[in-house]
Amino acid sequence: MLHAEDRFVKHLSIDCVVFGYHERQLKVLLLKWKELNKWSLPGGFIAFKENLRQAAERILKERTGLDDLFLQQFHVFGEPGRSDRNAKEIEFLSAKANMKVEKDHWILARTISIGFYAVTEFSKVNPTKDFFSESCTWCDIHKIPKLIFDHNQIVTEALKALRMQIYHQPIGYNLLPEKFTLPEIHDLYETILEKKMDRRNFPKKLLSLGIIKKLDKQKSIGAHRSPFLYKFDKPKYEKALKEGVVLVF
Amino acid sequence: MLHAEDRFVKHLSIDCVVFGYHERQLKVLLLKWKELNKWSLPGGFIAFKENLRQAAERILKERTGLDDLFLQQFHVFGEPGRSDRNAKEIEFLSAKANMKVEKDHWILARTISIGFYAVTEFSKVNPTKDFFSESCTWCDIHKIPKLIFDHNQIVTEALKALRMQIYHQPIGYNLLPEKFTLPEIHDLYETILEKKMDRRNFPKKLLSLGIIKKLDKQKSIGAHRSPFLYKFDKPKYEKALKEGVVLVF
Repeated sequence: MLHAEDRFVKHLSIDCVVFGYHERQLKVLLLKWKELNKWSLPGGFIAFKENLRQAAERILKERTGLDDLFLQQFHVFGEPGRSDRNAKEIEFLSAKANMKVEKDHWILARTISIGFYAVTEFSKVNPTKDFFSESCTWCDIHKIPKLIFDHNQIVTEALKALRMQIYHQPIGYNLLPEKFTLPEIHDLYETILEKKMDRRNFPKKLLSLGIIKKLDKQKSIGAHRSPFLYKFDKPKYEKALKEGVVLVF
Repeated sequence: MLHAEDRFVKHLSIDCVVFGYHERQLKVLLLKWKELNKWSLPGGFIAFKENLRQAAERILKERTGLDDLFLQQFHVFGEPGRSDRNAKEIEFLSAKANMKVEKDHWILARTISIGFYAVTEFSKVNPTKDFFSESCTWCDIHKIPKLIFDHNQIVTEALKALRMQIYHQPIGYNLLPEKFTLPEIHDLYETILEKKMDRRNFPKKLLSLGIIKKLDKQKSIGAHRSPFLYKFDKPKYEKALKEGVVLVF
């Protein structure tokens, strides 16, 4: 049997904040630990041969079943004592993971965690719990329970990073239908930023940068309501994602 | 003698990118290693009892003499092999640091580095080289030599982070004289962003947020030139620094 300390980089972990968007709702993906009755973000350790993004993708896949997400690093959490475990947690790990967790075990060493976040359309994915978890579920951003360690702070910082990011990188691809109306993309931005934005000025910048383009097609949503449809210009979207932009609405 | 592996967190380091600004010039603080003829960023390891910012401050102080800088974490660099050392470097460390660096020595283990950056007024500080360095000097941002490991990439990412930050946090306190003209603060932003900004629209946002305020005082810089002086409103500046803003010029 290979020991964990031969496979993983000691003192380091990764925690993932997956935001889920759907029709003006923003949620976060959480795991509930078996027996311990505790909630946490999906997290894990970095294998020696992995780079950080590969590690984050593997961890997320193993712990929640989710893949193909654009995970972005945003902050490192390193207060001494942030990940101290109590006796019950150590007992759980010993029993469940079949580890002999003694006083000097590597899992009890000071652990500094690198935060990654991603955004997905939560009605389109199926989170699947892992061996350690009782459930893997979406939780409304405003109703997050007390999480283990400093995970509540990790969520707060991830939300700050996401809110700053959407001024500098486009967002919406995979979150909106292929063809969408301006109110739909407007709702997405308002939900993430949690503030009102001008209905008329808002789309101008996206249009002027060429990130979205107007289609010669309308959506029928009622007797006298048929807003025009738009779609993302994928090459321009990708370019803006790579090079960064300054979007102001 | 205390061994380094008892004092420091294995597998982790911190590298600091200190940007220096002075009259339309932007520089970066570099160290040149004794004997090895190699340039690097000031970096070091995290002691067990330190949090990340404390470690970054201590490392910067030890290696360059600089303190009282507002160091900000911006990215983690973790490609496997990024910090592999060659035989000459290992020999240097063995001799200079009086370490017996054998094949399994902790300093040769995979090391993931947390990047911090800060900005200072370079004409006001005196960088001082440490024991390992032949020199500690400011280098023009456009003339950075080949640095060790992935340090060139670290500088590039730090500059990206700084450029994004100045849209969301005020900058200039300690970089400009206490009382400054609009062209002086305009130059600061243009130098960092490396782009032209409208002379008239630029200060409007800073004024409307109350970050800078106009004084009833002019600076005499020539026969017919006496621009008004401005200063930062420290409480509003601090508030904007803490809460974040969206500045667009």
